[in-house]
Amino acid sequence: MTTSPIADPHAPTSTAPAGHTSEVRIRRAGPMDAELVDTMVREIARHEDSLEHVVAEPEDWRRMLARDDVQVLIATDGVQALGYASTTRRLNLWLAQDVLALDDLYVRESARNRGIGRELMLAVARLAAPDGLTVVWGARLDNDSAHRFYRRLGARLHTKVVAAWDPEGYAWVGADEAESPLGAA
Amino acid sequence: MTTSPIADPHAPTSTAPAGHTSEVRIRRAGPMDAELVDTMVREIARHEDSLEHVVAEPEDWRRMLARDDVQVLIATDGVQALGYASTTRRLNLWLAQDVLALDDLYVRESARNRGIGRELMLAVARLAAPDGLTVVWGARLDNDSAHRFYRRLGARLHTKVVAAWDPEGYAWVGADEAESPLGAA
Repeated sequence: MTTSPIADPHAPTSTAPAGHTSEVRIRRAGPMDAELVDTMVREIARHEDSLEHVVAEPEDWRRMLARDDVQVLIATDGVQALGYASTTRRLNLWLAQDVLALDDLYVRESARNRGIGRELMLAVARLAAPDGLTVVWGARLDNDSAHRFYRRLGARLHTKVVAAWDPEGYAWVGADEAESPLGAA
Repeated sequence: MTTSPIADPHAPTSTAPAGHTSEVRIRRAGPMDAELVDTMVREIARHEDSLEHVVAEPEDWRRMLARDDVQVLIATDGVQALGYASTTRRLNLWLAQDVLALDDLYVRESARNRGIGRELMLAVARLAAPDGLTVVWGARLDNDSAHRFYRRLGARLHTKVVAAWDPEGYAWVGADEAESPLGAA
């Protein structure tokens, strides 16, 4: 979550000319799309000034895109990729059910203002609908236009604190172990 | 995330008398602990005024506690349960690696101010350490003492917007489908 910001989709279809989205198709990415997905992930990461958080390489994507719990949707105009939405399906303990976590929503700069972000979100909803899954994701605090976009789609938004505890952050715990009652447990 | 708030652990060990935590043991919950976990989850949910978000029943916990990717840690004094930390292991796409998601951290009211929240967090770090996993979780925006507690442990905190899109929220998407270019895809 903390490493997967949502780019501003800039995609209010209400103002887009009707004919503009007619050529857009959305399809599920497979292992063959590893390089394409890798390229677009690095584009969104660069756009969000977060490139240092991307560890995944094409070989990782080849493996991840073959998993049932990973679904990446690619928007294309038949010639080139226009953007993508990446999702993972995961267990929520309180619900005792899976939720669909939206990791990235990205529309390439040249393809913005054509409603493609909205089409990708509708496709995500259609992934979630058969099992009645709640879709969950995070957005940057300062991205007001994205917040409005998500609310218009019917999502509920909350502000909260998210924490990340890296191995470097908890490295001291091991050293502490000897003195802890857990050390003898 | 939105349905699993972290209760204020009220657990700065730095002020706790040394002998106070010596009797605390932390163990991993198994399917036999389903009723106990269910009871404590409902306690934290009631404490957070979120009981309506708890769907899991003991039978669900029996199933979930048998999963490898679900690890719930229970703090006990040998007589009764004092609190718990629930975690799920899940894939992070940018990292191409699992992270350990901390769902709940809860210390029962009668057991607070004894460093038990801290002991549970250290035990979570020890779960994450062998594979070098980042631990991630959410906290309420207004829980300053929890934020300080997490920062002291070495976690990085950020404020962000989290979104949840329920089936009721995207129900209109199906109706829209016939007119959408996706309908014909």
